[in-house]
Amino acid sequence: MTGWLVIAGLGPGSDALVTPEVTAALAQATDVVGYIPYVARIAPRDGLVAHPSDNRVEILRARQALDLAAAGGRVVVVSSGDPGVFAMAAAVFEALEDLPQYHRLDIRVLPGITAMLAAAARAGAPLGHDFCAINLSDNLKPFAVLERRLRLAAQADFAMAFYNPRSNSRPHQFARVLEILREECEPGRLIIFARAVSTPEESLATVTLAEATPEMADMRTVVLVGSSTTRLVAGHIYTPRSAR
Amino acid sequence: MTGWLVIAGLGPGSDALVTPEVTAALAQATDVVGYIPYVARIAPRDGLVAHPSDNRVEILRARQALDLAAAGGRVVVVSSGDPGVFAMAAAVFEALEDLPQYHRLDIRVLPGITAMLAAAARAGAPLGHDFCAINLSDNLKPFAVLERRLRLAAQADFAMAFYNPRSNSRPHQFARVLEILREECEPGRLIIFARAVSTPEESLATVTLAEATPEMADMRTVVLVGSSTTRLVAGHIYTPRSAR
Repeated sequence: MTGWLVIAGLGPGSDALVTPEVTAALAQATDVVGYIPYVARIAPRDGLVAHPSDNRVEILRARQALDLAAAGGRVVVVSSGDPGVFAMAAAVFEALEDLPQYHRLDIRVLPGITAMLAAAARAGAPLGHDFCAINLSDNLKPFAVLERRLRLAAQADFAMAFYNPRSNSRPHQFARVLEILREECEPGRLIIFARAVSTPEESLATVTLAEATPEMADMRTVVLVGSSTTRLVAGHIYTPRSAR
Repeated sequence: MTGWLVIAGLGPGSDALVTPEVTAALAQATDVVGYIPYVARIAPRDGLVAHPSDNRVEILRARQALDLAAAGGRVVVVSSGDPGVFAMAAAVFEALEDLPQYHRLDIRVLPGITAMLAAAARAGAPLGHDFCAINLSDNLKPFAVLERRLRLAAQADFAMAFYNPRSNSRPHQFARVLEILREECEPGRLIIFARAVSTPEESLATVTLAEATPEMADMRTVVLVGSSTTRLVAGHIYTPRSAR
């Protein structure tokens, strides 16, 4: 087998946030595999076959990519943000577990700028001290697990980044998340709703926990919740390096 | 004031992980400010003044950068990894708090590939589900705060990334961290010691919690601790997207 499989992070949207390493891998690729809007970001060229697929078919997409690489393709699975953060890398390894015939394939992960880092940079440095990242999608996680994790994270005084906060299929869940935060944190806690950072649709809103409403988030939003020490200076939101 | 201040992330070491956005900012800069080895990564050119400084002088360095920008300089503070993750961005905003005369300065943060994402990509996808990032340096944080946070993070079943795990000035602290983890987690928990990822000195070692020793880490190491579900497939370490 001379093919290979690279799982590459395209960053949050702007080409100015794609690493040269990822650009080089794409230049060598014979096949690009991924969710439709991410594949659409890759310029067509002779010798490169695009394999766009719909959302929520991650394991099928991963198998397709493994098949192509096993057949000798130089395959790049494109992921938004960083492929290792709530994205395609874990799905590829999940698929690989059931396919021992592919265990010797050359598989590499290339990191990218994940949404929380792009959002934090726009806001200032809200993740400047200890923080956690939580996927609020409950497609693969019981809500009781999420609730316990949220409470412990608040008690640990982490700043938090929430991915996939809200979707049409789960309209009430993010409201419940805000309720849990209100039980654990003070009402003045700063929250940043960062939508589509680095794209033309970018928007950023900062409110207190008391002011936050579920409608402020959608599936293109990453939500950053400050720790107890997070504060505002001259329009920048940051968490000091020294903690309580 | 026509100067500006950019706090830019250079990624973990390789130039292939520097974003085009950061490269463009450096091309416009009149001054580059930072810790000696990071400034050394920037190619000298006419019109660019290098201001390298020693470690542990972050606030002085931040003030110097603010002074230069206020005097009209186009200043890039270079940071390893991502400037918002245990790096220079929070220090600049801390300095800014005490300098109201600089509150109208144009200050931007440009994200970078932080060490835990580069390390995770090399290992597979150990941060593929909910995770936290903790700075083990106790220069600015009492150990009791760190211990409580560690225990809550383990109880929340986060995967964890530890920055600054060990230094000559605190040789015993990381040993105590491993003891705490052994009290909270099962002995087979997977731990990755990733040193100097993407540089010629890169090394990666994966062991179980039972096998881990403090000597496996130094200040160039980021330590990744799996969650209870993190496992190995065909040499790749990953955390499935579905959690217990």
